[in-house]
Amino acid sequence: MTGPSDVTRTLSDFVCGARWEQLPDAVWHEGKRSILNFIATALAGCREDAIEHTLASLMTFSKGGQATVIGRVERIDALSAAFLNAASGNVFDFDDTHLRTVIHPTAPVAPALLALAEMRPVAGRDLLLAFALGVEIECRLGNAISPEHYARGWHITSTCGTLGAAAASGKLLSLDGERMISALGAAATQTGGLVECLGTPTKSLSVGNAARNGLWSALLAERGFSGPPAPIEGRQGFLSALAPSKVDWAALTNGLGETWQLANNTYKPYPGGIVVHPVIDAALALRQEPGFAREAIGRIVVRGHPLLAARADRPNVTTGREAQVSVQHSVAVALLFGEASLAQYTDSCVRDPAVLALRAKVHVEQDEAIDVAAAAIHMMTTDGGSLAINVPAARGSLARPLTDREIEDKLRALADSWRTGHNIQPLIDAVWALDHADDASMLMRLAVPEQA
Amino acid sequence: MTGPSDVTRTLSDFVCGARWEQLPDAVWHEGKRSILNFIATALAGCREDAIEHTLASLMTFSKGGQATVIGRVERIDALSAAFLNAASGNVFDFDDTHLRTVIHPTAPVAPALLALAEMRPVAGRDLLLAFALGVEIECRLGNAISPEHYARGWHITSTCGTLGAAAASGKLLSLDGERMISALGAAATQTGGLVECLGTPTKSLSVGNAARNGLWSALLAERGFSGPPAPIEGRQGFLSALAPSKVDWAALTNGLGETWQLANNTYKPYPGGIVVHPVIDAALALRQEPGFAREAIGRIVVRGHPLLAARADRPNVTTGREAQVSVQHSVAVALLFGEASLAQYTDSCVRDPAVLALRAKVHVEQDEAIDVAAAAIHMMTTDGGSLAINVPAARGSLARPLTDREIEDKLRALADSWRTGHNIQPLIDAVWALDHADDASMLMRLAVPEQA
Repeated sequence: MTGPSDVTRTLSDFVCGARWEQLPDAVWHEGKRSILNFIATALAGCREDAIEHTLASLMTFSKGGQATVIGRVERIDALSAAFLNAASGNVFDFDDTHLRTVIHPTAPVAPALLALAEMRPVAGRDLLLAFALGVEIECRLGNAISPEHYARGWHITSTCGTLGAAAASGKLLSLDGERMISALGAAATQTGGLVECLGTPTKSLSVGNAARNGLWSALLAERGFSGPPAPIEGRQGFLSALAPSKVDWAALTNGLGETWQLANNTYKPYPGGIVVHPVIDAALALRQEPGFAREAIGRIVVRGHPLLAARADRPNVTTGREAQVSVQHSVAVALLFGEASLAQYTDSCVRDPAVLALRAKVHVEQDEAIDVAAAAIHMMTTDGGSLAINVPAARGSLARPLTDREIEDKLRALADSWRTGHNIQPLIDAVWALDHADDASMLMRLAVPEQA
Repeated sequence: MTGPSDVTRTLSDFVCGARWEQLPDAVWHEGKRSILNFIATALAGCREDAIEHTLASLMTFSKGGQATVIGRVERIDALSAAFLNAASGNVFDFDDTHLRTVIHPTAPVAPALLALAEMRPVAGRDLLLAFALGVEIECRLGNAISPEHYARGWHITSTCGTLGAAAASGKLLSLDGERMISALGAAATQTGGLVECLGTPTKSLSVGNAARNGLWSALLAERGFSGPPAPIEGRQGFLSALAPSKVDWAALTNGLGETWQLANNTYKPYPGGIVVHPVIDAALALRQEPGFAREAIGRIVVRGHPLLAARADRPNVTTGREAQVSVQHSVAVALLFGEASLAQYTDSCVRDPAVLALRAKVHVEQDEAIDVAAAAIHMMTTDGGSLAINVPAARGSLARPLTDREIEDKLRALADSWRTGHNIQPLIDAVWALDHADDASMLMRLAVPEQA
């Protein structure tokens, strides 16, 4: 593997030197959308088993008191808060997606910054800038090592996220260039996370660690804790270990400060896997067709990009987590309930006899001519008729992004399922006004049950 | 990559089912030697910068009080204690070596168990059995993925050590087979560590994490936190991600319970890299030759296995850490001072003008016929004569292991440099009697400055 010998320094200098005036308005705004969406999914996830167990365990070791666990009354040390909030935000895979890499960009980065903001007062504008820079490092690393890295088994959100969280935290701590390199080195040697763990609580460990270890790396670097000069591109460094055959070196540093990875961020309207989204859109549209009748559903054929079949042709799912990546389950609930929200991806919904019966009628076909963000559905009716829907671009895709209002509504719906009657509007307003906030930690005070 | 589909279960069943009667006496005894050697190097390392910084940082997040940091008065939570003790034991690379893999077996495993022993009372015999089993899992994984894994840049002590620590901790917690698999899954997704970080404080992060995350994985599994059924051999699991081209499947499970990796453990008499050991032996022997005179040293040629030149032909070192893998520095200090201990691998010794002058006279030559544990040294004298020494097997190698007494003496010397006048004999006696101890945590009470 050969490449330029100054990748880490170039990235480090970029992060250290970046000023908020350089950030285009659209990127600025996308940062707020990302944080809004993240808080929504963290509120939804904060009572999941993976979070309950890790929180209960970490409390026995923690000083406590320092920082907020989103959606909960417990307070814990800042490293553990970063861990838990990252895990909550990502636990349903309902958080944001950087489509080129399938990184969930916000979960590792924002929780590190929000925990740091509770350790030391920081302005909202500084937090937003650090966030954009962390996502930039995270997703550029992902671009450089995709698709081999993930295919081998690395959970790319966790691995690249650790360095993103370190860069962001280091920026918020105003590290100089040398210390930023040390932070990236400390982060690079603390990355981990296996795709094999998806669908189980262990998935949340590496996502949580990404935020925790990224934050800790920056705090250690601030103390003068030093690392190697080229942790990313060095002969036995991050790229060599984590992308054994192929690195797209240009993706790492070309156009730094001109293009922004955050501009490519997308938000899910449904908690299903990203490949399933156009299928859900198609099924929901089918249900609205004049000729649709629930009692007359016959054989259903879903056509999509080969990736759809590879990832999501799963007729026999047994858990809510697994159902999130099942075409069959997603079509069944969309047609039966006219909805595909978290309530349709519970273990009990998966066992519902009506859902079970309908899943059996759904078949997946591959068509290389169909884009990965598109899908087509064709339903025979028991009276001999048929209905068909084409979705050229899924809701939430780059071509058809969620509006600000739709992201707000997602937050409202998830906050309502978290705590009925809680007035979530102040939190929404606070995110949109984050760049004017003197103290960014006020976001966390608005994201818990009891308010000051 | 194809292999058997039940590797994780086989290893898990082995660990869960193992009883202390199955352990041969020699392995039992080797466990004590390993722990004695580990405590020695942890006492030597517990004031290093990497430990000072991480301890000071972790104290700000920790509940404190639960567990011992070897050699220090501070007490901290059990996870952080596991981290810090692993980092201390390994910081000088003066700890033990499993030669086939260059894993330092004890640093990740023993600290996890010792911290656990301070959370809940455990018998010394149970701790020793768990230790042997953890080392078994750790080194078998290492055997299966060497040498590619390390060559790519993975710090094998950290990566395999995390699973070893989890298996050992899980055994001490009496996990059943299902929970042991969960513990191994939680550990597998928390492995990390880059060779690129060697020689810098960041090296200690992944070693510390291995002990911490291994222990935490077992504690989470005990709570019912679950993972995938085949985290090690699954399609996108540990082996796929961490050994992309080649796995020696037989090394994982063949002869489980018949052979013991702990029996292959070795202990260093010198803090230098393992390849430098025969060179130091040779230089020390040369100094004892009747014809040796310090003022008459001419050109010196060291001949060794090609690995010696690849790793340690370093004439221009600038730090003590780097000097540990320098043939030139090691020969210079051995000839000048008749010693190669930690005092000869400090930054100031590296800058000593006499050492500098002598380093310039030392040259390394490769000879494939020479074993990696052997070396030859040839010195011209300024009066036209020459001296030569061959070392067929280094002190501390498997062919010439340190005696129990030599390990004790290593501990005495390092404990003396840690705290002059401290009576270390009770600790030595306690390690040899560990299998009869009702409460293994008494070892930790004997490894700190103030005693109860």
